[in-house]
Amino acid sequence: MSSKEKNIILNGIAAASGISIAKAHVFSKQKELVSEETIQDVDEAINNLEIALEQSKKELRKIFSLAVDKLGEKRAAIFEAQIMILDDPILISTIKERIKKEKRVPEFIVDSEISKYTHLMNLADESYMKERSHDIEDIKSRIIKNLKKKKWKSRIANDVIVVTTNLSPSDTVLFTRMNVKGYVTDFGGLTSHAAILARSLNIPAVLGVHDATNKIQEDDELIIDGYKGIVIVNPDEETKNEYLLKIEKLHSYDEELNKLKDLPAQTIDGKIIKLLANLDLIEELEFISQNCAKGIGLVRTEQLFNHLDYFPDEEEQYLTYKDLAEKIYPEIVTIRAFDIGGDKVLPVDLHEPNPFLGWRGIRLLLDNPELFKSQIRAVLRASEHKNIFFMIPMVTALEEVRETKLLIEQCKKELKSEKKNFDKHLPVGLMIEVPSAAAMAKEFAEESDFLSIGTNDLIQYTLAVDRGNEIVSKLYQEFHPSIVRFINHISTEGKKNGKQVSLCGEMAADPFATPLLVGLGLESLSISPSIIPQIKKIIRSISFKEAKELANKCLTLKTEKEINEALHHFYNKKIKDQIKNLY
Amino acid sequence: MSSKEKNIILNGIAAASGISIAKAHVFSKQKELVSEETIQDVDEAINNLEIALEQSKKELRKIFSLAVDKLGEKRAAIFEAQIMILDDPILISTIKERIKKEKRVPEFIVDSEISKYTHLMNLADESYMKERSHDIEDIKSRIIKNLKKKKWKSRIANDVIVVTTNLSPSDTVLFTRMNVKGYVTDFGGLTSHAAILARSLNIPAVLGVHDATNKIQEDDELIIDGYKGIVIVNPDEETKNEYLLKIEKLHSYDEELNKLKDLPAQTIDGKIIKLLANLDLIEELEFISQNCAKGIGLVRTEQLFNHLDYFPDEEEQYLTYKDLAEKIYPEIVTIRAFDIGGDKVLPVDLHEPNPFLGWRGIRLLLDNPELFKSQIRAVLRASEHKNIFFMIPMVTALEEVRETKLLIEQCKKELKSEKKNFDKHLPVGLMIEVPSAAAMAKEFAEESDFLSIGTNDLIQYTLAVDRGNEIVSKLYQEFHPSIVRFINHISTEGKKNGKQVSLCGEMAADPFATPLLVGLGLESLSISPSIIPQIKKIIRSISFKEAKELANKCLTLKTEKEINEALHHFYNKKIKDQIKNLY
Repeated sequence: MSSKEKNIILNGIAAASGISIAKAHVFSKQKELVSEETIQDVDEAINNLEIALEQSKKELRKIFSLAVDKLGEKRAAIFEAQIMILDDPILISTIKERIKKEKRVPEFIVDSEISKYTHLMNLADESYMKERSHDIEDIKSRIIKNLKKKKWKSRIANDVIVVTTNLSPSDTVLFTRMNVKGYVTDFGGLTSHAAILARSLNIPAVLGVHDATNKIQEDDELIIDGYKGIVIVNPDEETKNEYLLKIEKLHSYDEELNKLKDLPAQTIDGKIIKLLANLDLIEELEFISQNCAKGIGLVRTEQLFNHLDYFPDEEEQYLTYKDLAEKIYPEIVTIRAFDIGGDKVLPVDLHEPNPFLGWRGIRLLLDNPELFKSQIRAVLRASEHKNIFFMIPMVTALEEVRETKLLIEQCKKELKSEKKNFDKHLPVGLMIEVPSAAAMAKEFAEESDFLSIGTNDLIQYTLAVDRGNEIVSKLYQEFHPSIVRFINHISTEGKKNGKQVSLCGEMAADPFATPLLVGLGLESLSISPSIIPQIKKIIRSISFKEAKELANKCLTLKTEKEINEALHHFYNKKIKDQIKNLY
Repeated sequence: MSSKEKNIILNGIAAASGISIAKAHVFSKQKELVSEETIQDVDEAINNLEIALEQSKKELRKIFSLAVDKLGEKRAAIFEAQIMILDDPILISTIKERIKKEKRVPEFIVDSEISKYTHLMNLADESYMKERSHDIEDIKSRIIKNLKKKKWKSRIANDVIVVTTNLSPSDTVLFTRMNVKGYVTDFGGLTSHAAILARSLNIPAVLGVHDATNKIQEDDELIIDGYKGIVIVNPDEETKNEYLLKIEKLHSYDEELNKLKDLPAQTIDGKIIKLLANLDLIEELEFISQNCAKGIGLVRTEQLFNHLDYFPDEEEQYLTYKDLAEKIYPEIVTIRAFDIGGDKVLPVDLHEPNPFLGWRGIRLLLDNPELFKSQIRAVLRASEHKNIFFMIPMVTALEEVRETKLLIEQCKKELKSEKKNFDKHLPVGLMIEVPSAAAMAKEFAEESDFLSIGTNDLIQYTLAVDRGNEIVSKLYQEFHPSIVRFINHISTEGKKNGKQVSLCGEMAADPFATPLLVGLGLESLSISPSIIPQIKKIIRSISFKEAKELANKCLTLKTEKEINEALHHFYNKKIKDQIKNLY
């Protein structure tokens, strides 16, 4: 240990605040290549193989259940053929025999054995055979992926800082269930889902470090500083003590914020803002009551069930939603319909050239009415105590709203005839996250019970910038004048129609944005539960009158830079002294 | 021949009107697999190999020149290594030897020989070697792609209808230079660039037939009907005669339209609309004067030079722009800066997950100031006769406009000190095609000389629908209320600022849209030259007063369906009788 270089400092994006000290667990995911490692325990290897095969079958069946109509017969037949390969006794027994004989990791044997087939097929003259070989490549990748997953699931220890190339939302959830102390990644930015989850779970994260997986070794001691966005590898005694002191200070500030627990989020001049919580995991419920959220403003149901290998049926959904609604009662819980597609948990790769402009959200749900109806029925059945709101993602046209309402009516009729209880007036709201919906806020407010602005996607589409694409991410401007104007338009039109407008993107958790959003007339913000005390403190430091003046000024500005300056000026003048800042 | 089934009718999208009768030339591009064909002429094969190697080198150098700064040192080194492989004497001579000995197509030998390397590298333990093997796979694909291109370039005959899986813009250009009589594709829609080019060149096209390449055999006789969107395979005598008659009728209608040649595009009550032409190919100039366009509203410069293997330098651009400006004089020509990226002619695959939301248009130009300046200087030098307008694609923020203007000022200074002539007041305009620009039309009008609405992208971003993605293409709604409102907003704000607003998307060529666009106050439309006579005829059939009433009505409607109905109602009542319709 003493031979190691001390105090190496790596810089990244401060994606989730907090400080931790723990050992590194390095997991490099980028290379999907297969290594020729030998194994000790043949039985374990064969067991892992069987689990991976079973898992691959489950995934393929999930693809079926989701999209068979949409993908057409031809492609459906391909998946059928893939499932058959998974059941091919000769192939499977050959693989098992080789594992026993050669004592090498199953992924190597699977790769080598299946590649033999595809190589032969590629040599064949018939184009049919060549096409088949692509399908077999697919199935090979799927098995190998599942073999690898199996492997490192069992290897991960508690109390580590995870260091990896890239974090998918499902990775984050997986790690989270293992009491991880921090996240460091090579790629990824502030608005990635991994960052959002880390913030929500109060786990420090430094993302986009570029070469973290190269520079950090397994079991290196790490300090992760989620405020500054730095990682210190193998700190010396002095640095470590300095950070232990910081951690102590943080705890005492938390205690101070905790005193606001039972006070409302109210401006100096008496305007009350509802602070709601976002929820992606059942585990977050605990934080939500700790932080006294006034209900849940966004349940991302596609995340809630992401750990399953299948789409949960009506009954399973019903039990989960019911549990949520009961635990949060008498506050409300806003359940968003599955927002699958784009970058979000779709078990089938449709090879869309621009998935963000593709089959996702309400589009996918309306194309799969049985899937959608199972969710609607589950939500309705759980709504007995009238504290559930139901919310529709990615609407772009009124027809989608009307079609959804018809399906809801249909489900109500069914449940009535089945003599099941439900909230007859279940409020149905719309996510405003596509520019066409922003432009039509008036009509969307007229035909729904509430609106919720999803700023992450709204910014992305309005500016035509993929927030995950590093080459253009500097063009992703939270405070672009068009965004401020759109939010104002939506807020104004919602109010004119007497409909609640809330905001549930990352912007709601940005302390600089809070006075602007209050000034634009938003009366409800939905954020990560861990941030609620901080935002409450800000709201309690400002007056609504001044916030309105600030907002009106921002509406006349022409560039993001000017707006940013106005917000920082306001923050420094009115808020900074109220907020304890460790840095 | 007589054994073939007669009159098989295939349905697709009517992407470019017109009727042709000719033999099929089937070209299936989807499978990038390599066949083991034998060859006759070894010298020709080796010659093809050398050309493909040279071409691959050129492409790699083009990647360098474009993006070396942006991609960073690491990736640049990769391309350098790839160029070195192309020069490896042992590899190249081995490949040549095998071609001579085995008499098989060069792509097969290239594939087999380079695969040997990558296979070995993948077996190696060092991750460095494994990573290198990916680069070598890249270079292999590049050579094979170029070998294939070479091959079918020489195989294509004149007077055929091209049947293919998918048409890229460069394919279309390539085919176009070969006097093709029609296009039939498995995939692709109305707003693909291939469709746009086909319409512009007056070549009938039926796209999205799904299984055309399966159902049509080489040398089948085809009738392509670009009005109805059908293809008739091996027509019987009766059908053929019927179509020959239709072709005759079409010619006589063309002659009738031709009589409007020297009349203005003027409404009954005297409002004049400027009909400008879009230009992608020098070859189109001929159509433009034939159809009496009032100048060129859009030169897609990235298409103009797409046949080159390199970025044209200032001199080459200058000569081309000068030629255009002189030939169109005294009318104006609007030159759009390179709109590279997205789906458009970028010689480097950046693996962006959502290229439409990525590095394209002005973003890419401002990140490559030397490339951008060479174009600005060329445009300035060609502007001597003051009939050039310069237009900037994909602007989302005022900073981009300002930065561009600074570069233009810098170029003017340089040219002045070099004593070169140019238009000191070169008008600089902005494409409004991103929702943020639409929302800020006022500010964009204030800081530019003219605006041009690009409806294709504007619709795509506003509705978050990739128009090329078949799964969601039904959601790409030209007449979505938000689009009509955005166009109105841009037109109004432009006028308030005394700036010309034109429209240059596909919508401008839709006969149903013409009255709406005139009513929304647009005074200039830029369209494919071949459509100008038809749109002129429509404008001469309507009154501005009625068009305004129609537009005002559409601004109050809530769904695309309602707007569509209003437009069809107007068309049937006011226009239909004036237009000769064969169907």
